[in-house]
Parts: sequence; C-alpha cells; structure tokens
Amino acid sequence: MLQLFGTSGIRGSLHRITPQLLVRFGLSLATFLENEGEVTVASDARTSSEALKNALSSGLMSGGCTVSDLGLVPLPAFAYTTRERKSKAGVIVTASHSPPQDNGLKCYDGRGMEYTPREEEILEDLILNEKYKPVDWEKVGNRSYVASANEEYIEAVLRQVANFERRIKVLVDCANGTASNATPIILSKLGCTVVTINSSIDGTFPGRLPEPSPENLGNTCRLVREIGADIGIAHDADADRLTVIDEKGRYVTNDSVLALFAKLLLERYGGGHIVTSIDTSFRIDQIVEKAGGTLERTRLGKTHVILKEKPNANIILCCEPWKIIDTRWGYWGDAIYATVQLIKLLDESKGSTSELFEEVPNYPQERIHQPCPDNLKQPTMALIQRKLSAEKGVESVWTYDGIRVNYQDNSWVLIRRSGTEPKIRIYCEGVTTRRLNELSKQSISLVKMAINKAEKQQN
Amino acid sequence: MLQLFGTSGIRGSLHRITPQLLVRFGLSLATFLENEGEVTVASDARTSSEALKNALSSGLMSGGCTVSDLGLVPLPAFAYTTRERKSKAGVIVTASHSPPQDNGLKCYDGRGMEYTPREEEILEDLILNEKYKPVDWEKVGNRSYVASANEEYIEAVLRQVANFERRIKVLVDCANGTASNATPIILSKLGCTVVTINSSIDGTFPGRLPEPSPENLGNTCRLVREIGADIGIAHDADADRLTVIDEKGRYVTNDSVLALFAKLLLERYGGGHIVTSIDTSFRIDQIVEKAGGTLERTRLGKTHVILKEKPNANIILCCEPWKIIDTRWGYWGDAIYATVQLIKLLDESKGSTSELFEEVPNYPQERIHQPCPDNLKQPTMALIQRKLSAEKGVESVWTYDGIRVNYQDNSWVLIRRSGTEPKIRIYCEGVTTRRLNELSKQSISLVKMAINKAEKQQN
Amino acid sequence: MLQLFGTSGIRGSLHRITPQLLVRFGLSLATFLENEGEVTVASDARTSSEALKNALSSGLMSGGCTVSDLGLVPLPAFAYTTRERKSKAGVIVTASHSPPQDNGLKCYDGRGMEYTPREEEILEDLILNEKYKPVDWEKVGNRSYVASANEEYIEAVLRQVANFERRIKVLVDCANGTASNATPIILSKLGCTVVTINSSIDGTFPGRLPEPSPENLGNTCRLVREIGADIGIAHDADADRLTVIDEKGRYVTNDSVLALFAKLLLERYGGGHIVTSIDTSFRIDQIVEKAGGTLERTRLGKTHVILKEKPNANIILCCEPWKIIDTRWGYWGDAIYATVQLIKLLDESKGSTSELFEEVPNYPQERIHQPCPDNLKQPTMALIQRKLSAEKGVESVWTYDGIRVNYQDNSWVLIRRSGTEPKIRIYCEGVTTRRLNELSKQSISLVKMAINKAEKQQN
Amino acid sequence: MLQLFGTSGIRGSLHRITPQLLVRFGLSLATFLENEGEVTVASDARTSSEALKNALSSGLMSGGCTVSDLGLVPLPAFAYTTRERKSKAGVIVTASHSPPQDNGLKCYDGRGMEYTPREEEILEDLILNEKYKPVDWEKVGNRSYVASANEEYIEAVLRQVANFERRIKVLVDCANGTASNATPIILSKLGCTVVTINSSIDGTFPGRLPEPSPENLGNTCRLVREIGADIGIAHDADADRLTVIDEKGRYVTNDSVLALFAKLLLERYGGGHIVTSIDTSFRIDQIVEKAGGTLERTRLGKTHVILKEKPNANIILCCEPWKIIDTRWGYWGDAIYATVQLIKLLDESKGSTSELFEEVPNYPQERIHQPCPDNLKQPTMALIQRKLSAEKGVESVWTYDGIRVNYQDNSWVLIRRSGTEPKIRIYCEGVTTRRLNELSKQSISLVKMAINKAEKQQN
Repeated sequence: MLQLFGTSGIRGSLHRITPQLLVRFGLSLATFLENEGEVTVASDARTSSEALKNALSSGLMSGGCTVSDLGLVPLPAFAYTTRERKSKAGVIVTASHSPPQDNGLKCYDGRGMEYTPREEEILEDLILNEKYKPVDWEKVGNRSYVASANEEYIEAVLRQVANFERRIKVLVDCANGTASNATPIILSKLGCTVVTINSSIDGTFPGRLPEPSPENLGNTCRLVREIGADIGIAHDADADRLTVIDEKGRYVTNDSVLALFAKLLLERYGGGHIVTSIDTSFRIDQIVEKAGGTLERTRLGKTHVILKEKPNANIILCCEPWKIIDTRWGYWGDAIYATVQLIKLLDESKGSTSELFEEVPNYPQERIHQPCPDNLKQPTMALIQRKLSAEKGVESVWTYDGIRVNYQDNSWVLIRRSGTEPKIRIYCEGVTTRRLNELSKQSISLVKMAINKAEKQQN
Repeated sequence: MLQLFGTSGIRGSLHRITPQLLVRFGLSLATFLENEGEVTVASDARTSSEALKNALSSGLMSGGCTVSDLGLVPLPAFAYTTRERKSKAGVIVTASHSPPQDNGLKCYDGRGMEYTPREEEILEDLILNEKYKPVDWEKVGNRSYVASANEEYIEAVLRQVANFERRIKVLVDCANGTASNATPIILSKLGCTVVTINSSIDGTFPGRLPEPSPENLGNTCRLVREIGADIGIAHDADADRLTVIDEKGRYVTNDSVLALFAKLLLERYGGGHIVTSIDTSFRIDQIVEKAGGTLERTRLGKTHVILKEKPNANIILCCEPWKIIDTRWGYWGDAIYATVQLIKLLDESKGSTSELFEEVPNYPQERIHQPCPDNLKQPTMALIQRKLSAEKGVESVWTYDGIRVNYQDNSWVLIRRSGTEPKIRIYCEGVTTRRLNELSKQSISLVKMAINKAEKQQN
Repeated sequence: MLQLFGTSGIRGSLHRITPQLLVRFGLSLATFLENEGEVTVASDARTSSEALKNALSSGLMSGGCTVSDLGLVPLPAFAYTTRERKSKAGVIVTASHSPPQDNGLKCYDGRGMEYTPREEEILEDLILNEKYKPVDWEKVGNRSYVASANEEYIEAVLRQVANFERRIKVLVDCANGTASNATPIILSKLGCTVVTINSSIDGTFPGRLPEPSPENLGNTCRLVREIGADIGIAHDADADRLTVIDEKGRYVTNDSVLALFAKLLLERYGGGHIVTSIDTSFRIDQIVEKAGGTLERTRLGKTHVILKEKPNANIILCCEPWKIIDTRWGYWGDAIYATVQLIKLLDESKGSTSELFEEVPNYPQERIHQPCPDNLKQPTMALIQRKLSAEKGVESVWTYDGIRVNYQDNSWVLIRRSGTEPKIRIYCEGVTTRRLNELSKQSISLVKMAINKAEKQQN
Repeated sequence: MLQLFGTSGIRGSLHRITPQLLVRFGLSLATFLENEGEVTVASDARTSSEALKNALSSGLMSGGCTVSDLGLVPLPAFAYTTRERKSKAGVIVTASHSPPQDNGLKCYDGRGMEYTPREEEILEDLILNEKYKPVDWEKVGNRSYVASANEEYIEAVLRQVANFERRIKVLVDCANGTASNATPIILSKLGCTVVTINSSIDGTFPGRLPEPSPENLGNTCRLVREIGADIGIAHDADADRLTVIDEKGRYVTNDSVLALFAKLLLERYGGGHIVTSIDTSFRIDQIVEKAGGTLERTRLGKTHVILKEKPNANIILCCEPWKIIDTRWGYWGDAIYATVQLIKLLDESKGSTSELFEEVPNYPQERIHQPCPDNLKQPTMALIQRKLSAEKGVESVWTYDGIRVNYQDNSWVLIRRSGTEPKIRIYCEGVTTRRLNELSKQSISLVKMAINKAEKQQN
C-alpha cells in the first residue's frame, strides 16, 4: 500500500501537500528520469496551485529537467500537450473534484498515460528515502512558458470532428474550473449555441463544489430546462469528469454515459475490447455484449494500466466512473473530447438527449458509507468475504479490489474499504428497485455485523 | 452633423468599418496628436475586432505614435489604463451593445474622457479630406503589448472599497463580453458568492444579444430568483452598461439605477452638481432636489462634454441611460465600478435589493419607434415642435436634442429623430399609468399626422 | 516583368511600402488562399516593421485567414514554423540586407518555400486590380501570438546535430538583427565559446549596415583575430545570409562557402543534384564534379523554383550568393542552420577554418557597376549580346538572366541589368589575377561602348 | 556576524543555495511581512536562477504574499519596479559579479533599498530557527508575470534626460548579462551609435567572467580603440556595476568614476552630503571638498544604511566601489542610470572621455591578498591595529571596518579580513608611485609578521 499516492495521484490538505514536498517530488521525478529531458507542468485554478507548481518546477529544474509550464489548462489539454511535445513526463497540480481547500498532483508519462502503481512505488522510494539527486550548475534546467497549450488542444479537438449539422443548444457548467477556457469555445466553434454558467475561472469555486454530483448540480439541471437547452454538460475542476443532463433537466447516471460511449466506439470500430472498473453497472456488460465487444474489469483508478500490460488487446475504451479514455485519441481521461463525441452523436441521432439514452438500460443504484475505524477494516473485510462467498444465488465473486458479488439475476453488491477515510463503502445495483432495497438492507446489516464481530475479536 | 461619428463613436456594419478606414483613422489621430506620443488601443471580443485593431494600430504607428495594446479588456479597464499610463489618447474597437455583426470605435483623450464633438469634427476633416501625414522611417512608432491592464484595473477598483460585511450572492451576466474577466473576479474578491452566466468570452454572443434590455434578460432574471441571489448584474459587450435585477428576478428600470446613484453620491459628498441627458426620468430631478444637489440636462451621449466646459462646476456624476460617470473615479462610463458601488450600498443597507430601490419613485415609461423616411425627418420635427409648444398644461419645452415637453404634473414626452435608422423615437413618462397611456396615444397620433403633412408638403 | 515583386519579395522605401499597400496585400493573399486557413506572419527589427506587419495582419484577417504572429524572429525560424504549423502560407516583413530606411516582405508557401514568379504574378493581379474579397463578419479571422517560434526553431536545429567535440571559439556578428536571439544561443548550447558583437537587436543598425559585405565587416574581421576566435560568422538583418571569417580575420569569399557546402552535402549523401544561380563561381563546378554530383544553373533569386519544377531530381542543395537551401532540412535559405553545419564540419576537421577552405580553389573576382539610364538598358544589352557571342575563345554563352560568357580557360564574364537601379552590372572571374584584369577592362569598355551606341540609336 | 547574509545579500555555490533554502527564505520573508502584500521577484541569467526563483516564489506564496515576477531584468529595473509598484519588498536571484557556478539573492524594501543588517538579522532568525508560518488555503498568494518591467524602466530613465547633442559612439559590454536588454537600447534611443560586445544574454558567460575588472576586459578595451568609440562601458551580470573605458581604450580607475559622479551631483544640486565606503580613494575627499560638499565614510556594502539612519542629511550620493546610488533617482546601485548620466556629462563637455577624467586626480593604488587561516584572523587584526596606531606621520586611524590608517601626506593603507575567504586584504593608495611601493611593502611585511605572531600565540 502506497503512502503518498492514492487512487488518482497524490492528494490532501495543505498540511500534507507543502512546497517542501513538491520540491522533493520534483527532484525525485527528475532523478527517475535520469536527470535530463523535458517535463510539462500545469495546474488547476485552486488558490494554492500556483505556489505548489512553482515548488515542483524548482525541484524538477534542480534535478536537471527543463520545465515547460502550460499554465492554467484543463487536464486533457495538459496530457495532450505532454504527448505532442514528446516530453518525458508531465505533472499537473490539481485535486480534481476534491473540495477547494485540498490540493495534489497527477503524474503522466510521455504518452499522456497516468503513472502506474509500479512507477508510483519507485517515486515514493525516491521521495521518502531522499534518494533524489540535484545536478551541477551547468546542468540545471530552465523553464519556459507555453502559452499556446490550451489553444492547440482546442484546435486538435476541432480537427477530429466535422461541424454539427443541427444548431444544438448546450448549457455548459465548468465548475468555475479550467474547462471554462475550452469546452464553451470548442462547442461554439462546432456550431452550438453555448450558454454558460459557472464558467469564469475562480479557485474558490463559488458557483458550486467541483464534484459534478446530483447534489451540486440542482441549479444547473433547472437552468437546462428553462433555457430550453438540448443538453447540459457539467465538469469538475480539471475537466477529467463529465456529467450529462438531458433536455428535461434530469441528471443522467454516469454508468449510462459510460455504456453509451462503449456502444458508440464499438459501432465506430466494428468491435473491440473495453476495460472498466469493478464498481460499474451491469448495463455496460449488456451493451458491450450486444454491440459485439469484449469487456474486462480491473481495480478502480487503474483501468489505464491494462493498456500498458496488454498492448495488443485492441482496447478501444477504458472507462471508470466519470473517466473516459478513448484510446484512439489519447491515453488520458478526457471529458472535453468525450463531450464533443457525445454531442456529435446527439447531432447525428436527429433526436433528443433523453431519446439517446433510452438505448441504455437503467438499473437503480445506491451508494452507502458505513463508518469503520481504520484498524478494523482489514478483519471486517475478511469476515464479509467469507460470509458473501457462501451466499445463495451467487453467480460469481470478484476480490481484486474489495468484494463484488454478482447474483444470477444480474444484481450485484460491491463492498470496499475507503483508502482515505474511516469508512466501508457499499455499492448496490438491483434489476428492480425492490431488489435494490433488499440488497442494500442486507448489505448494511452484513457490514455492521462484521464490524461488530471484528471489534470483539480485537478486544 | 458629423458623417462618421454618431452618439458614441463610430459604428456600423463591416461594409463601412473596414481595415482601410481604420488605417486612415489611425493616421489621422496620429496627425491630430502631432505625430508623436503613446496611444492605447484595445478591443471587445467581436469576431472582427482584432482585424480592425491591427489596422488602427498600423495607422497610428505609421503616423508616429507608439501603440500600447491592452488586448481584450472591458472599456473601463481600457479608459483607466489610458489615464494611468499618461497616454495621449486611447481608442477601443467596439460596437458596445450593438449586434454581433457590427463594429466601430470609441476615442478617448489622455484623461479617459470620450472625445467631444469638436474633437470629432477635426478628426473627420483629417480622415475624409486625407490630410493625415505619415512619418519618416526613424519616427515610425512601435507597438507593445500591455498584458496587465485588466489586472491592474481590478486592483485599482479593489483599492477603492473595503470588503463587504455580508456574504452577498450575485448572479453576474457578462453577455459573453470582456467583463467576464473582471466583474466576477472583483466581486469574488470583495467577498461575494458569484454565480456566473454568459461569462465566457465569445464574440458571437451565443448566450444573448449584447444589449442588456428586458427582452434579452429573461433567463437571467429567472436564474437570479432560482439560485436565491441577492442581486443580478448584467452588462453589454464592453461593460460600459449595467442592468440591475432585484432578488425577485425583476428588471430594475435604468432611470431608477441612475437616480439611486445620484442619491448615493450626493450623500457621500454632501451635495454637488449632476449632469444627465434629455431622455431621463423626472425621478432623477426629485431625488437630486431631495438630496440637496443641482441637476443639469444636455444632449444624449454628451453629458461628459459639460465636464470639459465647466471644470469648476463640482460635477460629481454624469449619467445617461446605462452610462454612469462617477467623476471622482474617472471620466468614463464605468459599469464595473458602478456595480461595486451599488453592491457596497446594498451591503451597508442591511436590506434587500428591492428594498434599496424602494427609495426611488417609479413612474411608468414607454418608448415607441415610428417609421419615417430620412428626408422627411427635418420637416416632421419642425411641425411637431410648432404643435407641441402650443399645447396646454405645458411647464417647459426643451429643444437642444429633439423636443421634450414637460407638463405641469411632471409627466413628459420626448420626440427625437433617430441618427442611424429611418425612425422617429417617442419617449413618454407619466405620473400614472393612465396618464402615460394618454400621452403615448397623443404622441403617436401627433407624429403620424406630422409625417403625413410633411409628405404632402414635399410633393 | 513584375511591378511589385523583385528578386526576393517586395522591397522599397516607405513611400512605396505603406500600410495601405500591406492591407491590400493581406486581402489579396487571403483571396488567393480561398479566404480561409492559417497564415504565419513575422518581421525583422526595422523601425517600420511592426506597423507594416499590423496592416498585413489586418488585411489577412479581413480576408478570412487566421493570423499566427511569430513576432521578431529570424527568417529561418519563421519559415520553419510556417512548415511545422502546417500553415497555408507565411509572410515576413523584412528588407533583408537592404539599408535601415527600406522595408518589404517575402512570401512563402506552406512548405516554407518562397513563392514562385507564377504565384507572385497572381498576387500582383489581385492587388493591382483590386480583385481581393473581404469576408462576412462571422468569417473574419483571428490573430494569435506564437511566442515559442524562436525557441522551437532552436530546439529543432539542436536535434539535428550532436554537440561539438572541440571547444570552438566563435565570434558572432548578427548585424543587430533577429539572429541575435538564435545563432549565439545555438552555438553556445553546442559547446562553443560564443563572443558576440552587434548582437543586441536594434532596428537602426548602429553597429554596421545589415549587408555582411567586406566593407561593412572591417571591425568584425579584426576582432576575430584579436580574441583568438577559431571562426567568425556574420549575418544580415533577417539571417538568410551568412559570411564566414577565418581565424586570421580574413573574409572568406561567398562562392567558396557555397562550394564547401556543395562538397559537404555531396559527401554526406553520396552524390546528388545541385542548383545554383548564374552569377556564381566556376569553383562550384569543379567541386561538384570532383565530388561526383551534378550541377544546374538558373536565374538569380529563383534557384528554389527548380525544386518545384523537378520534384524527382534528387536536389540536395540550392545555393546562390549568401543563400543556402539545404533541401533535406527545409526549402528556405537558412544561414543559421548553415552556420551550425559549417562549424560542425570545422569541429570534425580537427584543423583550422583557413585549412578547411584550402580544399576549395579560389579564383579572383570583381563586380563593377556601370551607370546606364533605364530606357537604354534593353538596347544596350542587345548590343552586348551580339558582340560577346562573336568573341573568340568562348566555350559557351548563357542568356537566361543577363549574358554570361564562359571562356575555354574557365574564366567568365556576366553582364546583367539591375532591376532596381539605373545600372548595368558586370561580374568577372579570372583563373588568374592577370586574366581577371584583362576581362574586367574589356568588359567595361564593351559596356560603355554599347551604352553610347544605344544612346545614339535612340536619338 | 550573520551566517547567511554577506556584504551584499546571500551568495554561494549551489551546495549552499538550494531550492529548499529558497523555499524557507520565501516563507520567512512572507512571515516578516506579516503574511500578506506583494513581493516582486526577478533574476539574472545564471543557469540556476530560474529554478531558485521558482522555489523562492513558492515560499512567498505559501506564506501569503502575492508574487510579481519581473523575469530576467537588470537589478536596477527590478529595484525601480519594486518601488513603482509599491510592493512591500523585492528579491532578486543573482550572484552579481561572482563566477557562473555561484548564485544567491539580494533583498530590498518597498522603496528599492537593500535590506539593512538589522533586517537581515531578523530574517536569519526566522529561517535558521524555522519560525516561518504558512497560511491557510484561502490566503495563499498568487503569482503574476510582469512582462513590462524592463521596458518601463527604460522609459523612466529616458524621461530623466534629454537626447544627446553629439552623436557619441559607445562600445557596450554587458558581460552577457541582463543589461543586454537595457543599456544598448537606452543609449541608442538617446542618440548614441551603440556597438555591442558580449551583449547577448548567456548564463554561462562565454564572453568573459562577469566581474568588470581589468583582467576580464582586455578585448573590450582594445575594441573601444579600434572602432574609434568615444567611450566604453562594461557591466557585471546584473548591472549594478559599471566600468568606464576611455577613448584610448584605457580602463578608468573605479575611484575616479565615483569622484566624477560626486562632482557632477554636487554641481547639479549646489552642494550636499555624500556617503562612501572605507576603501575608496582620497581623491573623493578632494573633489567633494573642492565642490563644496561634505563626505562621510562607513562600512563597505552598507553606505545605503546611512540613508535610513539620517533621513534629513541631504545625502545626494552613496558610492562604493562600482556601486553608485544617486538618491534623487532611487535608493539602489544603478549602473545603467549612472552610465546615462556619465555620457550626458561627456556630451555636454564637448571634449573626450580622457579629458573628462583629467578633472579627477589619479593616485596609484594596489590591492593585495595575504593568505591567513580563519581562526587567526581575529588575533592578527588585533596585532595589526596596535602596531599601526603607533606609527609616525599618521593623521587618523579608522576601525569600523578593518583598520585604515591615513597619513599626513594623504596616502593611506586599509587592512581588512575577508568575509568569505581565508585571507587578509590590503588596500594601499600613495600620493606617488614611490610612496605606494613603500606602503605596500611595509604593509605586507606587517601583515605577515602579525600572522606569524598570532600563530605562535595560538600554540
């Protein structure tokens, strides 16, 4: 288990994410890169991002790397530029959809792919054991400012898709994040009428919290309906996430967005292999099967690792909750590119957004957090696993990232311990609402019981 | 009557506003400035603005002036910077609240004051009669890009006002114009929760037409109410205009905004002189009298000229429809600074926006356009004047910019010919709705009759 | 005969090269490009360049092209960027080696090749007959500033060549031109000790006139010797020209530089075809023959046209006085890249610059200007041609650009009329100094006599 | 005795000047400034400067200060901008005239005055005892890039002085430092013919070592003569230093430059008070007395401190070796402004540079370094002081910074221990060469003897 890196990069409060840590991170990454070559850096608009990016840059330069600073750009523009410049690596200072007071970083290789657990492990060793090496005065790297990254990314996206035929009206909600400089412009150039809300950059996130969840998007959903928009799009702070709102102002379940993408790409390429995470819906299995593709599941936050492990697997899509990696375009989660693809599909469908999503089955889901002290997580999970495996009507049990039990009726339950909080997380999906209620009730009591038992064992 | 300049600068379609004209304008302005010194240039976000600004700059440089290009900034930031840099003059390429397909320019002196009709006349002579002079190769001016104008303007505004005490929630609608980079940021720094709509810069103005009129602000008004904002603010493309929306989502009459400003400044400075245009409400007279100030009226679009003509008149405010010149701050219409002052007032009032405006009397108004061929305008207006002067119950008649008849009950009618369209414009304000209806009905038939008569005389 | 375009683009005093002309040029080029696509623009540091570039940009944008402004960069960086960005065309405002008071432009296609006479003719027709077309407001192009062109060009050059083995000391004289930001930096990064003179950018060219001719390089030659430099390099204002000074402070004849390049490339690629202009030395023929290559001559200023006409000719080098097009690198004259290649060769040679040039035969040359009124040029040239063709000992006569007579002993005389001045130009090369004197004496009296005769015929 | 700060800021090799130290310095300075307000940062062109500036900036921002980054500018432009922006403080990353492999920083208050020993002491306490405080996420400072600092400084200097009447030819040698972007441009705009050497920015300092000492300026002196320049000017890496070369190519003693400045300013202002350091020539005393001014001496590197201690003393000049603070212009050493003043004086003199300096008496000087282990410095200096005070013919003895003995014939000897090296430094000035030789011989044997004695006492 890594100490610094979590599901997606390093993240935390400023007590943890300090300039001193970022200097050491920079020196360590430079050392890992053999003390030479270009590294791109960028950041989201958080109040602390510029300070941290400067510390990071200093460490990289002192370690012999040249730094190309892309400024304030959405994550997709950063990853794209990292690849296009043939940089050796890229680091973006961002806490993605976390609250304003947090910060962190995500680290990418020269192809724009997030570092794998193996690479993260090596970096942690360099940082924590201070194995990094500064270079001599003649080899210290310089820093240049690349002002055009956002613009070039926009142009690259526009080159991928023809102008829309219909004049689609879109409400875009950029969470006051860096997509403000990209998504509205791209859609406007493609021929949409783009109405924006929360699309002026502001690192205090006054419009709403950065996570594009139903509870944060009430006003946005309402506005979609009132202005008569054909579709609403909402991002998080760095635009790796995408929420869709239909023309009636209804929040579209993220799993349905992933399923629609799977369908879109399978049809475009006439089949292919798709990787998704353990916590996504059965509707994806159904859609992929129907469209003649193959599906593989892996750990949450690590779908891209399969791309590295199986270079010949014809993987056309890696998808996790809110993260869509269209591999023919790039190896990063790109909610801006995905937005464009989706609205293109809407344009071609000749119908409405709600009609578009009618093609995807919609099963009810629930997510529950059960408090659990850190020291009890391990024995609790062991008890749960034993119990669940013995249940009736079970089709299969997956244990590579928590425990997911798949029932014969296609309902399922996933129980995982949280990596950052003293909690056990329960995810349920039922083929009917009734079935869902039954499963969630059972799961809660199972988890509670296991915690109790683990507590007693401990004493 | 000037051929190029209208009520506010030069404006028109691209058939009229060409690069060739802008080169000649630049050469002429440089010649007027004696072929040396700095001129600031800037532009709004219209699709043709950058092209025209380049032609303008070329003319200025070839005429011996150095050009400081402020880029894409709101008009107030441009005028402020022109003054702060001690430039000799400033030109902004903008068509203000006109529709997207038009463009134009506004020209300012080194104090940030719009050129007067006298100065415009001299420029026209230079342009139309090609009297401009290019300079020798050694004297050709250079161009530098001033990237910090917007930021420095923001800092200057922030220095004028203490942070708000209340956490006021504001909906800001920048019309996809250049205020997008200023108003939301300033209000956020002063402690507001700023929700934005139409605040990503887009020269096609997809969110709404640039004019912040009731018909263009339907969705914005609704959103104010729905998100529970304390106030809504809407600009035009270059942010010299300001519309206020109260917490109930109601559009506040512009004359009431002017009246409130008059009150605010008269109280702050313990009296003073105020200049307004011929077409504003009687409520301003009432408020100014009550607050112990003096009021003067002049031609529409030219209130600032009085500042030049009467430098010792203790003028604290020049105000016209949507244009607020707070003379202690600057000599330009500044809807961003006015926004800050207004929300400061709201903050201090401890009450709501609608309560704030209860202090201002609200008389019903109407604006009517009557078609009238250009060649008939002059005789029509002569006939109207004769007729109106002979009416009963008339307190006074003003004829320096159209004909305004003030009745003894404080109702009034203003009839003006349009400078740009084949129309006669009628403005009415009644002390009651009934009185308004009576006046508008009378006025329409009067104008129609006069046009008929003029037509007959012609034949 | 073209009216606007000369040997290399359009050039002249500011009475001729006005903002109005540049607006029209921009509109015409945009029209030629079918009113869409990107055009790169750039300029040298002349006092009038920025003004003219702005007018050009305005015309291009009004004609529907987007403008990418590379700023103040050497011509090679401009041409390289035009190609790399896949722009449709590029225009640089420069008068190259002409005196400070002149200006002009050079126009390139999307591959970085200067426009051919055929393309120039079409442009002239559009400009002079005002056939250009502005576009509608929605199609007007935008302008973006590409700050990284110089830096990316430098990196591209550095990727072509390994660091030098020896620590070579170079004196660089950039004529206070745009190479100041490139040549010294590149050579320094390759491991040279770079001493600079006249390498701060200054559009009044205070250090010396921009032409890198012997009369302008006296101090530079002396300084090479005094600081003990291994080699001296001198550019003109836009760095398409290159003069070499050996370690003894001696100016190396330009034809010898061309010959050495021919040798270098023929050896590198094992043969190939080389194009040169009519006015270059016999030593090039000798070197090319010895190295197993083939040589072709064409009109001055138009060697690149052969690249277009004979795409399959395996042309590895087009070279004219001071212009070196290394076709595997790019289709433009690149004195910076050539400098790097040359010093690389010096590095590998293990010897001195003077030793390096010992490989090239050195025949004495002379250039003489004979005054001749414009209206007499044509009959004078006709008379000269008749006379020369009848001479004895003549091996061959070339008449595609003036008249060049090649004698059996390899000496030659070229007589051309000047395109820009009332002069006939005489170029002589002799196999010995005695032979040269003989030829130049003969030629002068021949030209004088022909002028006299033409004058008499006229009257 | 301070541990980090020396005579002028903090300086050393990269083993000492690390990113980690700079982060801590930034946090400490921010804490000293009460965790708010703007700090300007800038740097010279050393290879490590950008890396260190980034670390410094990160510390400042994390400590709550906003950072305005001026980029690569000469020290005078940095100090000027710090004052003009009304920043709270400014830090420039530079090692001034030290060799390329070193780096460091200098810290200034909001008036552009270098921090005093008292302020440095407080900072050291914060840094070394880790008393600094980072701020909460909402208070973290931002960083903006001020691209115009160099240009605005140039304009400010130009506003101070009318164009020259004569066309003076100047050779400028900027040591490949940041003055390359300022001194040549300013002199060119004032009407000089500016020839440059070593005036392309290069952090490896290939042209010569940054210190403008006679041994580093051989070629520059020679070139002045050869190009027929009227004067030569040589800077160090950050342009706080100025060396003058006369038209004969002779290096002008720095003390004579200071004396000429004293004369110039005393004449301009009709008298005034002048502060100089302990190690400057008696010629300054003579000139000041003759021109009716008063002179005060203080510790080396600390002449500016008197400005703070005696605000009402009418101090018009603080001068130390190579450092000229013209207090009516600014509180920093400004070799660029001094250059302009000096050449203005030359212009007005109608004569040559050598004639100009004929007004200043020129006494021969010598500087000798005597090796001495650090632990012996203190007893050695005590022994020397005892001995010297007892000498004959002594007019006065000063002991506030080493020991300076002034003889009745105006010759003098100063003996100081080095702060950074294991050496004792001896400075002698004689009224004749013979006297100088006598004094230097005596001093050397005195120092040697004292070291020997101290060594014996130790054992």
